[in-house]
Amino acid sequence: MEYSLYNNTIHQISRMLSHAKNWLEKAIEYADTNNIDQTVLAQYRLRPDMLPLTKQIQIACDVSKGCAARLSGQEAPKHEDNETTLAELIARIENTQGFLQQISSEHFEGAESKKIEVKLPKMSLNFTGSDYVNHFVLPNVYFHLSTAYVILRDAGISLGKMDFLGDIKQS
Amino acid sequence: MEYSLYNNTIHQISRMLSHAKNWLEKAIEYADTNNIDQTVLAQYRLRPDMLPLTKQIQIACDVSKGCAARLSGQEAPKHEDNETTLAELIARIENTQGFLQQISSEHFEGAESKKIEVKLPKMSLNFTGSDYVNHFVLPNVYFHLSTAYVILRDAGISLGKMDFLGDIKQS
Repeated sequence: MEYSLYNNTIHQISRMLSHAKNWLEKAIEYADTNNIDQTVLAQYRLRPDMLPLTKQIQIACDVSKGCAARLSGQEAPKHEDNETTLAELIARIENTQGFLQQISSEHFEGAESKKIEVKLPKMSLNFTGSDYVNHFVLPNVYFHLSTAYVILRDAGISLGKMDFLGDIKQS
Repeated sequence: MEYSLYNNTIHQISRMLSHAKNWLEKAIEYADTNNIDQTVLAQYRLRPDMLPLTKQIQIACDVSKGCAARLSGQEAPKHEDNETTLAELIARIENTQGFLQQISSEHFEGAESKKIEVKLPKMSLNFTGSDYVNHFVLPNVYFHLSTAYVILRDAGISLGKMDFLGDIKQS
């Protein structure tokens, strides 16, 4: 696949979100088999001062849709952050992927040098599109997906590295 | 910074490795303050069936040097994987960064379409340079650095998201 800001974000992030859906599907199966309420796994966390699975997935989705919206100039869908089950987290991911799929490579024209502002509660961050992707989007998406994966591993779900990487494209 | 395969890998990975050095320095301070042997933290892991901190850092370094070597056609330094202390893990990172710094953007000419083979114990993976970076290098580096971060958090070291992201470049 051609090396471009569009493919490296929209396409690769959507792939990674698909992998996360697979982990959540395995978690649903695990919950069913072991008679665990899905909401327990959704709220599972590694430490009291770390975010639970639900929040890890929500943030990964939000950074993904924010990236697609800011770089393309399109408006991102709003989400209420009211997911309580694993099935609802899968739906959240699918909704995010649906938005990403609406963005075409034409929307990304000039995105590398576009001025991007990210407003956080305590500060605003200002980037070029290129630095935004390298210093903010990808580290955040991978961090929260990795942490979601580790939370599920810690909860007892059988996952391996290839579940994280997904299908490696042979080319 | 210009959007290029070279900057998006060599430069960004070296940045992330610097962040990991900072976490390890905080871990050394924590070990000293709490009278914990560094080797205990180096071997700390989240679960018996997950890799310890040392291995997470070693793999992140190996994927990084492998990326730099394969895409540039240079030979990567060899490492014995014999680190037992946090200070030795920092030295491993610095040695890896030293190799990355020797690679110039000219070495990356045509890297996007270069044929890359990664030989694993059970299989060989074949990529273009572009897919190698998106489907293998970045997911692996971020996965192992995120897991190293989570291991240190779990061990009690005070780290926050900005320790993971590092200095956000204002532009």
